Amino acid sequence: MEQMREAVTALERQVAAQAEVVKQQKAAAPGDKAAWQPAVDALLALKKDLTAAQKKLADSLAESSGAAAAPAFDRAALESMLFSRFFFAPAFGIYGGVRGLYDYGPPGTSLQTNILHIWRQHFVLEEDMLEIDTTNLTPAEVLKTSGHVERFADYMVKDPSNGVIYRADHLVKDVLKARLDGHQLALQAKLAPVAPAKKGGAKGDAAKPPPQELNAETIARYETILDTLDNYVGDALTKLMADENICALDTNVRVTDPELFNLMFSTQIGPTGNNVGYLRPETAQGHFLNFKNLYQYNQESMPFASASIGRSFRNEISPRQGLLRVREFTMAEIEHFVDPLKKDHPRFHEVADLSLPLWSADAQMNGQPIVQCTVRDAVALGLINNQTLAYFVARIYLFLVKIGIDPQRIRMRQHMANEMAHYAQGCWDAEIQSSYGWIECVGCADRSAYDLSAHSARTKERLVAREMLAEPIVKTAWMMDINKAKLGPAFKGDAKHVLAYFEGLKSCTSGEWDEAALLRLKAQLDADHQAEIVAPNGKTYTVTEAMIAVRQETTKVTVREFVPNVIEPSFGIGRILYSLLEHSYYVRPGADSQRRVLSFPPAVAPIKALVVPLSKSTEFEPFVRELTAALRVRGLASRVDDSSGSIGRRYARNDELGTPFGLTVDFQTLKDQSITLRERDSTRQLRVPSIGAAVDAVADLVHGRKTWAEVAAVFPEFVGQDLD
Amino acid sequence: MEQMREAVTALERQVAAQAEVVKQQKAAAPGDKAAWQPAVDALLALKKDLTAAQKKLADSLAESSGAAAAPAFDRAALESMLFSRFFFAPAFGIYGGVRGLYDYGPPGTSLQTNILHIWRQHFVLEEDMLEIDTTNLTPAEVLKTSGHVERFADYMVKDPSNGVIYRADHLVKDVLKARLDGHQLALQAKLAPVAPAKKGGAKGDAAKPPPQELNAETIARYETILDTLDNYVGDALTKLMADENICALDTNVRVTDPELFNLMFSTQIGPTGNNVGYLRPETAQGHFLNFKNLYQYNQESMPFASASIGRSFRNEISPRQGLLRVREFTMAEIEHFVDPLKKDHPRFHEVADLSLPLWSADAQMNGQPIVQCTVRDAVALGLINNQTLAYFVARIYLFLVKIGIDPQRIRMRQHMANEMAHYAQGCWDAEIQSSYGWIECVGCADRSAYDLSAHSARTKERLVAREMLAEPIVKTAWMMDINKAKLGPAFKGDAKHVLAYFEGLKSCTSGEWDEAALLRLKAQLDADHQAEIVAPNGKTYTVTEAMIAVRQETTKVTVREFVPNVIEPSFGIGRILYSLLEHSYYVRPGADSQRRVLSFPPAVAPIKALVVPLSKSTEFEPFVRELTAALRVRGLASRVDDSSGSIGRRYARNDELGTPFGLTVDFQTLKDQSITLRERDSTRQLRVPSIGAAVDAVADLVHGRKTWAEVAAVFPEFVGQDLD
Repeated sequence: MEQMREAVTALERQVAAQAEVVKQQKAAAPGDKAAWQPAVDALLALKKDLTAAQKKLADSLAESSGAAAAPAFDRAALESMLFSRFFFAPAFGIYGGVRGLYDYGPPGTSLQTNILHIWRQHFVLEEDMLEIDTTNLTPAEVLKTSGHVERFADYMVKDPSNGVIYRADHLVKDVLKARLDGHQLALQAKLAPVAPAKKGGAKGDAAKPPPQELNAETIARYETILDTLDNYVGDALTKLMADENICALDTNVRVTDPELFNLMFSTQIGPTGNNVGYLRPETAQGHFLNFKNLYQYNQESMPFASASIGRSFRNEISPRQGLLRVREFTMAEIEHFVDPLKKDHPRFHEVADLSLPLWSADAQMNGQPIVQCTVRDAVALGLINNQTLAYFVARIYLFLVKIGIDPQRIRMRQHMANEMAHYAQGCWDAEIQSSYGWIECVGCADRSAYDLSAHSARTKERLVAREMLAEPIVKTAWMMDINKAKLGPAFKGDAKHVLAYFEGLKSCTSGEWDEAALLRLKAQLDADHQAEIVAPNGKTYTVTEAMIAVRQETTKVTVREFVPNVIEPSFGIGRILYSLLEHSYYVRPGADSQRRVLSFPPAVAPIKALVVPLSKSTEFEPFVRELTAALRVRGLASRVDDSSGSIGRRYARNDELGTPFGLTVDFQTLKDQSITLRERDSTRQLRVPSIGAAVDAVADLVHGRKTWAEVAAVFPEFVGQDLD
Repeated sequence: MEQMREAVTALERQVAAQAEVVKQQKAAAPGDKAAWQPAVDALLALKKDLTAAQKKLADSLAESSGAAAAPAFDRAALESMLFSRFFFAPAFGIYGGVRGLYDYGPPGTSLQTNILHIWRQHFVLEEDMLEIDTTNLTPAEVLKTSGHVERFADYMVKDPSNGVIYRADHLVKDVLKARLDGHQLALQAKLAPVAPAKKGGAKGDAAKPPPQELNAETIARYETILDTLDNYVGDALTKLMADENICALDTNVRVTDPELFNLMFSTQIGPTGNNVGYLRPETAQGHFLNFKNLYQYNQESMPFASASIGRSFRNEISPRQGLLRVREFTMAEIEHFVDPLKKDHPRFHEVADLSLPLWSADAQMNGQPIVQCTVRDAVALGLINNQTLAYFVARIYLFLVKIGIDPQRIRMRQHMANEMAHYAQGCWDAEIQSSYGWIECVGCADRSAYDLSAHSARTKERLVAREMLAEPIVKTAWMMDINKAKLGPAFKGDAKHVLAYFEGLKSCTSGEWDEAALLRLKAQLDADHQAEIVAPNGKTYTVTEAMIAVRQETTKVTVREFVPNVIEPSFGIGRILYSLLEHSYYVRPGADSQRRVLSFPPAVAPIKALVVPLSKSTEFEPFVRELTAALRVRGLASRVDDSSGSIGRRYARNDELGTPFGLTVDFQTLKDQSITLRERDSTRQLRVPSIGAAVDAVADLVHGRKTWAEVAAVFPEFVGQDLD
């Protein structure tokens, strides 16, 4: 994008310079056309290049803002089909709806269930993960420790003229982009004959200022702001919005100063009014809080992973982009607890040769493209921090491909240093490309020991794992004895403050003493037989040799204790599901452009088989019943379509649900029990000699035991039926 | 309970009377022991009977208050096992916990997943239900319509001395019961020599008043209050609490007047602060709001059912009874939409002969017991309102039995008239008996057309179904024409109020006019050529013949429209799961009383097979790997226990997880690949010749294709292994 902008700017300068040349030549010899015609031709050529560059930039802007899609893909058509087939629908529609809330209808629910089923098989069952189910309601204390109460917020601003609220960074971005686009339009208007003004520029927004030319300095400043927008917080953001006079897009009224808006839904737990709770913004905290239970359940053996599927909530200031940015969503999260010294992975070899589309932080910084790189090389080169992180990055990629995401539209993007929490030892997102651009659908972060340490510090629970040492370690460390019998009477009511000071010198997680502090104490005691301390209450106390003693102690350590590190693959199921819908969607080439198809893999498809009797005639009913019963016994979801309309029309209707196989009962069935089996994408039909054989074939195809080609090799092709 | 109380009261009177007799006889002839000995013997016999009756009542009181369980069942032991095996745990335990919130650990989650899987098969797949997934967040408007904002509330009272909040009805019940119990204790104390005072009576509650004798009138009043407590609302409840001087149990301080506390968790949706939302208290509203989408998805064919599994929330004032009364819970709900004129059910014959334990409203009123009754008879006798309701009541019973609930501890209880909403056409609860008493775990209500009508009236969306009539119906009805061209200029700004009046005469759901109102209008117009109306704004207007005309219209109706009725089976999954844990639990009879078992049916068990190598020796590893891989391929969850400890100890540990089958790898396996297969309940062991055969046997057993007896008939018994 920035390269395109630069190209346009450079061409603008060249056009202006050349125009000056033409002007001077024309002024020098007005009648001598031959003298200045070459300069005019050069100017026209430059203007043509400029127009082309501007168009390219405009298209790219439009695409990235989601306003227009690639020509081959019609999002509106897909969305209308998804609503009318009730994959999903805006929730509370008959009440006018609530932005950012969607309900899933039968095919959407079934699609989600199937994705989650494969997720459970691919991760939980395959890796013996410990699945848990924790509460959505979360007391405030927990989310204070995790940092969400303080930091899980976006800045919002209000248009004082109509009360409309914007997310501050979105508004800055939209306003500056509009100004940059306006600059292009103003230039085009100036160079009018060659580049006609775009009609879309002024669609009824009376309040909008007219497109305005910007000077090079302003353009550069805007571009810098857009590139670094995430860095503006607090006063800097307020100043930015004032300096750049950021106004509401619709009214052009100056918005209020930005205020932080916490994105968690808050509520009161119980009747007292004193117990603030939140709806969890992620499922992860439930795993960390249950670490001790999980570790014990796993017979105190490491590493292990917990897994959880559940809702999370995010009170978006202004939700947009359909299922991609919603206020309530299903997440599937894994927390893999691992010894920080042992981040190799026993099954690493299984994925080492897999080639992944990796976009490293360095490549992003230097404007370099994605590279294909094997998992082995990624770890060897230090691109991915460790084997375990790399193993999960690879498994995530394989999962996405398994459920039908187009591998060409997946990239694994490393977080840049400024996107990542200070404690993180690497974070890779699986981004999926859709008509909305590249969207983060899975995150995979090495969160080090941060979460367990934070909860441990807050609750004083020791959230640690233990390892028997092969060789005991003899360890000498400074510690102190406290003679409470002396200390108590000496300080009376203040004794607890003095004790609190000494307790503070001992780590609640490691149990180790602060050696530097102890040695300082010891030095004072050795010199003066007493020492001064400043207790947590702020008062200074003098303690004597009789009350405390600092000494070295040698212990034989047979067990190593450590705070496990956590590697966290975290899946936004709604985003994956929506991406899958886009990737599966196509319009069947050929005469009838209305024939829309969702080409889900059979294992993911909401309905596995469509059962179509030739007509509603009762003579077909026993066969339909037998077919659906046989499918049900095998756990295969089916749907009967005995509505009127040709077989072809009914097939087409169910292609829109992504049903991979069709089973038709016709007059021939009455004679010889044979059934037609149709495959969705090829529309090829086979004649299968019996209901049993047909259902077996569908089961084999759905469970991946046979391919369509293998089934087609067994049964004769069927071409008899009228398909329209 | 009341019969026991009456028996005690009667015996008290007899004892008192007999004591009087003894007193008189003794006074009449102090020395003549033979004269009064028979009276004394009679008195002693009566006192013995009284003590026995009192003990029976006390036990029964204790049982119903949950303080003590039946002797054979030790709830504390079960709970401690469930916590330590991490079936579930109080949520946020390391933060001190939050009452009414629980997390499920791996075995609990898996148990729940398996119950829900069977639920989906038994209901959704079997009946081709339309599964949907709707949001937890719900805007206030929706829950105003459903009545929850106004009525989903309990009364609470506060102890002003310490701020403790009680649910008002619970407190009244606890206080009156304590007084009735105190009466018994006081009487026992009076009749001291025979009935020593119970030690438990005064355990450290200094504030508690001493047990006091009550007069017969007070006892009768308390008993009436306890029987009719649900009827006290508003001022009547306030008066009751004042009249009876209801004090906090711990402090004996008079509590505040009762206030309504809404049981929904409220929050704000979006940043404006103007959009109150609630966490749904049930999933049902999401079904009703999507009726149109569902009806269309079902190709406008009736009847059909929607189904949904999801969380619901209830901000209990004071949660107790563990998993049975929680603030966040998983529900599975079905809404079966049916033509009110066609409540027969095509599959009724499949359940008609099933005998169900029915406890009708009449039987409850008349103190009669549960009767076994076939579903056919229940409908024929009018006990269950219609075939469809009866079909679901039967299917619910079959589901509970299928997942392992003890059929002896299920009863289907009809709601009494005062428990039921006025619109309901019958409501049956499946109640399951556990150590907490009989608990409602599934409700099954015929909600008539109430919900769709209410949402339709509020939103003006016509939530109706259509049926093509076989024979068109010619229908004559009164309607009115409104001449807006006359009416508008005549009333100017007030015209909208006049129009609103006339619009109010037409039903927004049926589209029919209020015939009585029209005929009244017509009579006025016929008499005076004008008529007076009172518009919704309270003003009176005069309309003339020129503005409106009332006339009869004859139409040919080819389509019948109706608001579908809804039959709603609603499952509390956590309550079912907890009941199943109690019903599955037993202590293995024999030497070692610590051997506790959960005897889940294999299909429900969290883990299907335990894999036990004789020791950690590496030579067993390949077999363990092969076994677990083979189980995984068949989708069977397994767990390896290669910890130290005897095979028997490891089996016992996994009996506590309810693992039905054990597979042991021993030295014999190294020689001939044979494996030991052990069944949990019989502890019988078989020797199976290969890993493949063993895994096949487990798969057959789990999927119900073979019984243990059938498997045991094929393979030889194994008795070689040391089990301790």
